[in-house]
Amino acid sequence: MLSFASDYIEGAHPKILERLAETNFEVQPGYGDDAYCASAREKIRAACACPGAEVFFLAGGTQTNRTVISAYLADTEGVLSPVTGHVNGHEGGAIESSGHKVLCLPSHDGKYDIGELRRYLEDFYADREGYPHMVQPGMIYVTHPTEYGTLYTLNELEELRGVADDYDLPLFLDGARLGYALATPGTDVTLPDLARLADVFYIGGTKVGALLGEAVVFPKKAPKHFFTHMKQNGAVLAKGRVLGIQFDALFTDGLYTEIARHAVKEAQKIRDCLARCGYETAVPSPSNQVFVVLTPEQEEKLARDVVSTFWEKRPDGKRVIRLCTSWATRPEATERLCRILADLAE
Amino acid sequence: MLSFASDYIEGAHPKILERLAETNFEVQPGYGDDAYCASAREKIRAACACPGAEVFFLAGGTQTNRTVISAYLADTEGVLSPVTGHVNGHEGGAIESSGHKVLCLPSHDGKYDIGELRRYLEDFYADREGYPHMVQPGMIYVTHPTEYGTLYTLNELEELRGVADDYDLPLFLDGARLGYALATPGTDVTLPDLARLADVFYIGGTKVGALLGEAVVFPKKAPKHFFTHMKQNGAVLAKGRVLGIQFDALFTDGLYTEIARHAVKEAQKIRDCLARCGYETAVPSPSNQVFVVLTPEQEEKLARDVVSTFWEKRPDGKRVIRLCTSWATRPEATERLCRILADLAE
Amino acid sequence: MLSFASDYIEGAHPKILERLAETNFEVQPGYGDDAYCASAREKIRAACACPGAEVFFLAGGTQTNRTVISAYLADTEGVLSPVTGHVNGHEGGAIESSGHKVLCLPSHDGKYDIGELRRYLEDFYADREGYPHMVQPGMIYVTHPTEYGTLYTLNELEELRGVADDYDLPLFLDGARLGYALATPGTDVTLPDLARLADVFYIGGTKVGALLGEAVVFPKKAPKHFFTHMKQNGAVLAKGRVLGIQFDALFTDGLYTEIARHAVKEAQKIRDCLARCGYETAVPSPSNQVFVVLTPEQEEKLARDVVSTFWEKRPDGKRVIRLCTSWATRPEATERLCRILADLAE
Amino acid sequence: MLSFASDYIEGAHPKILERLAETNFEVQPGYGDDAYCASAREKIRAACACPGAEVFFLAGGTQTNRTVISAYLADTEGVLSPVTGHVNGHEGGAIESSGHKVLCLPSHDGKYDIGELRRYLEDFYADREGYPHMVQPGMIYVTHPTEYGTLYTLNELEELRGVADDYDLPLFLDGARLGYALATPGTDVTLPDLARLADVFYIGGTKVGALLGEAVVFPKKAPKHFFTHMKQNGAVLAKGRVLGIQFDALFTDGLYTEIARHAVKEAQKIRDCLARCGYETAVPSPSNQVFVVLTPEQEEKLARDVVSTFWEKRPDGKRVIRLCTSWATRPEATERLCRILADLAE
Repeated sequence: MLSFASDYIEGAHPKILERLAETNFEVQPGYGDDAYCASAREKIRAACACPGAEVFFLAGGTQTNRTVISAYLADTEGVLSPVTGHVNGHEGGAIESSGHKVLCLPSHDGKYDIGELRRYLEDFYADREGYPHMVQPGMIYVTHPTEYGTLYTLNELEELRGVADDYDLPLFLDGARLGYALATPGTDVTLPDLARLADVFYIGGTKVGALLGEAVVFPKKAPKHFFTHMKQNGAVLAKGRVLGIQFDALFTDGLYTEIARHAVKEAQKIRDCLARCGYETAVPSPSNQVFVVLTPEQEEKLARDVVSTFWEKRPDGKRVIRLCTSWATRPEATERLCRILADLAE
Repeated sequence: MLSFASDYIEGAHPKILERLAETNFEVQPGYGDDAYCASAREKIRAACACPGAEVFFLAGGTQTNRTVISAYLADTEGVLSPVTGHVNGHEGGAIESSGHKVLCLPSHDGKYDIGELRRYLEDFYADREGYPHMVQPGMIYVTHPTEYGTLYTLNELEELRGVADDYDLPLFLDGARLGYALATPGTDVTLPDLARLADVFYIGGTKVGALLGEAVVFPKKAPKHFFTHMKQNGAVLAKGRVLGIQFDALFTDGLYTEIARHAVKEAQKIRDCLARCGYETAVPSPSNQVFVVLTPEQEEKLARDVVSTFWEKRPDGKRVIRLCTSWATRPEATERLCRILADLAE
Repeated sequence: MLSFASDYIEGAHPKILERLAETNFEVQPGYGDDAYCASAREKIRAACACPGAEVFFLAGGTQTNRTVISAYLADTEGVLSPVTGHVNGHEGGAIESSGHKVLCLPSHDGKYDIGELRRYLEDFYADREGYPHMVQPGMIYVTHPTEYGTLYTLNELEELRGVADDYDLPLFLDGARLGYALATPGTDVTLPDLARLADVFYIGGTKVGALLGEAVVFPKKAPKHFFTHMKQNGAVLAKGRVLGIQFDALFTDGLYTEIARHAVKEAQKIRDCLARCGYETAVPSPSNQVFVVLTPEQEEKLARDVVSTFWEKRPDGKRVIRLCTSWATRPEATERLCRILADLAE
Repeated sequence: MLSFASDYIEGAHPKILERLAETNFEVQPGYGDDAYCASAREKIRAACACPGAEVFFLAGGTQTNRTVISAYLADTEGVLSPVTGHVNGHEGGAIESSGHKVLCLPSHDGKYDIGELRRYLEDFYADREGYPHMVQPGMIYVTHPTEYGTLYTLNELEELRGVADDYDLPLFLDGARLGYALATPGTDVTLPDLARLADVFYIGGTKVGALLGEAVVFPKKAPKHFFTHMKQNGAVLAKGRVLGIQFDALFTDGLYTEIARHAVKEAQKIRDCLARCGYETAVPSPSNQVFVVLTPEQEEKLARDVVSTFWEKRPDGKRVIRLCTSWATRPEATERLCRILADLAE
């Protein structure tokens, strides 16, 4: 049985496990004060070309979104997100549970229409009598790649920064799968760009080869007492080294990039096959997630050999299925998947 | 340099790392639905002699306390704790941040005086006009071993259960260091006792040999939608296998007990040495934490060779210092520590 | 200058002020334990034909929505509402600030399409793998009249009850303007119907002739410790008599109905005039709110003589304006408004 | 039957009701934008000699404490209070429900020992490794008069200000009964002093002659979006005039002072009688609350003729009883109470 269900169905890249084993007996202070967290922070600052960045390590994406967003927002503020944003649907109400509304805008394959976002803000503040009765926008949340695997261009991110500046809103980029965005051929967005444009972003580990872990980067300055915010949200590991060692490995000898490139390359093979065979793709995703439209019969047949993820039902009865690659996707597996898809298409 | 600073300053017991490596390439579903979580659950149920228990795996203690407590309490309820309880001081306000007051009772070396607890509840409900204006007690929180390393007897836990029954309060036992309690010579408390007496308790992994992880056991029934409570609190790992594999290893061939017994034995050697040398201990802790009273001069000298944890200042100017053992404490290190302590005492 | 800006721009119906003055020197216990709250509760129970109802008095609508909703919902649950529901937009994030998501459905002139609501719930629970990662629906919130002055029929409320029963969801009816709904000619919904169909509803005072106050009715049973929920939300007045006396007056000799009937009659005169003059109305509201579509020039001219409320801008550049009546609307004022509107239409 | 149970057992001072009636038919905007709120704000600014103060009107004390405290505190911060502070015990967990811990210090007849407070803060920040794991002090809360009727001297308030400055903490003075403090003979604290020393304080209306209402004064600047904070906490009345008219009346021709002076004078008569008769008072309260120690037999006898409030049980079995005066306390009633107390003492 093949599985292209997700990028979190295997363990960690072997180099990460190796480093965990090599360092296992060393005595290190707890709570992120260890030498490996320190080293990983330095390497991340270098990769971001941002020597003054503050870097923190958390365990997972929902935890990170919740902690970062609530650390920034005043009680009366909410976070802007496309309606498909992870914070809006699949985090069990983490944002609301920390007291904040998710202010939803339309989603265009997972992305904002930036003009639409700007008009929303203009209209909001134009209603001078009304808006003090309403939740104020307090942050722009953006995923990159989005939940649909799509990417912003550098120009779009600069426009988002412009909106953020005009309305004095912090710009937060959820990079749970950031590696894949950076490794997609043709993207013009780099880590230093993010460090220049975002107030805070994170470099996802869990879905890019680590056992667990997200590296949160504040290029300028973290909110006051951010460590305590983490603690309060249950986001501090006593053995903080577990995260430090992994990110230190990921940012040594380009491992993070290598993992992501491999996965995107395998995904591209799947896309090429789908195009050749005349499949419809639901979303023009160029990164490590592929969204293909199948008939229920095709879905059923595929399921005999391949584990995939059901994404959504279309009004015409067809089914959107996600296929996802990772560090562990073997080229032979991709080839076999492509053969199966080709057979199904006939 | 020796370190007895804590039980989370090394990595994981080697058998755990081995199992992570062995299973690394296997495809497993995410979010705790993997085969290792399933296997670990079964082994924990067996160890608790409680085949119907529901078991969940979370990453750390504060996260677990926050998630469990808020899943049980109604908005108007608070959690009872000795004033020294971990939830009251060292969790960055996690409980309050989820909306609940910690209702503090006096601490007796970290423990409740159970008669005092009962009187508190009697007095609370006796004030019929006043109490509807106040936070209602909604849960009894108890640590075992306590923050001071002390233990409840089986009889005391049964009395706590009696209070819980009389006031219809769930009894929650924080076992961040539970292994050490169960492995302390002379204790009459077993895992099946806890499964019989507590509504919910957890078996600490982070501080008992794992990289991270706590196994929460609901002997009867978990609160409705507990998984969603976890998700909302950022306590679900995408690669849930990371926790499942570790607890599976810990509950295979008695590893959990072996780790804890070793640490308690080494701690006992330190206590024996302290007694021989005439040191005062601040608390009669029998588990893996030792609290010794030093003069500032002794503390300073000790610090040249040994990392310990400063605990608290006493009114007489003396200093309470914690020395802590773990799976990784080598007998030779303990011996050297004892020699240093003996020298200091002269 | 005439004002039809809202139903809260004058003080209270004179009979209410009279009763406040008559009872002013009486000694009464605080916090809602006074004789007037008791009497008002009895009269409300009688009006609802529900002798076992529990009745509480709060100060305002947002406070009531917040307190009731958070008293019912578990941490992982959200409240269903049409997107135009008051809880979703104009309460400053009160629901989210108490930890809960507002789960929005499309609005049809302020109302649910009940088939749509049912399908939403079906689809939600059909996604068995997904929904535990999402906020669970925990309550159906419905306004009557809606924010657009529209009404549900008895049949529709019975269908809503059916959905509520099928999914075991409490049904909460926000009646901030309930009087006007009950007093609208042609409605087939009565207070006893609400007591039969809703788990909780409130009878708005602030907008129906009182200085302030909402009477919350739980026909079967209030959530445990509801008084403490009120206290915690700052919704308990020390001089609870202030609310009891007002509701006692409102439910004496049919004053509540009389106030509402008067306002609806005056609003109907405005609607008749608008129809005669060929104005477009934005929403078919039959109660005390009238939503008329004006050109910007008409709006400007109207504003010379009449205070109204700007409601929303239409894509065609026209403006929706709300005109609202109350206990204090004098028939001569309505007549003058109609003459002005007739002049504007020419 | 006499009642000295509290200062909220009668309605409002007659002049307030008069003004509500006189203004009843006037059209005024809602939500605090009316002419009476504006006028009351001006009069309060004048009384505080603080022309730049921002003034808001809320309905009650718990609501005000909750709204003000949560508007100031970051998520990781708590509020300092003597353990007897109203926010700590009798607000149903309002502070915790908004996410914040009440950080308790010992109470000395309801007051801080300011040296103790300073040492607490010194010790807190001295524990450099520990405090980031703990709730940070974010505000100093002080009641004046305290829950025990005691008062701070001007010198003490200046010392509190000094601590606030040294630790950059806002100083919040809960003045639910402020009038009585200002009207107590011998006090050297005035409204302009409070405006100079506090970052925010409130002038209680509910317990000083109004039907309901508290005037919150920010001498320098309110927290951003304070109106939205109020809205979110259910603390905005649609008919905001109800509060504006009352405070306008209270600050016209010295009514607020007159009400408070009268009550304190009557309370002083009771204290004089108690002293003459040899009663023990539990607390040296000089304002409108008197705390007398009675035997259970005396309490029982007193209860035949007088309603009082049971305060607390003493270890010696005696009972502390509160007697409280208000604007409505008639001198003849005080005289009769004194005769009864004199009889009881024999």
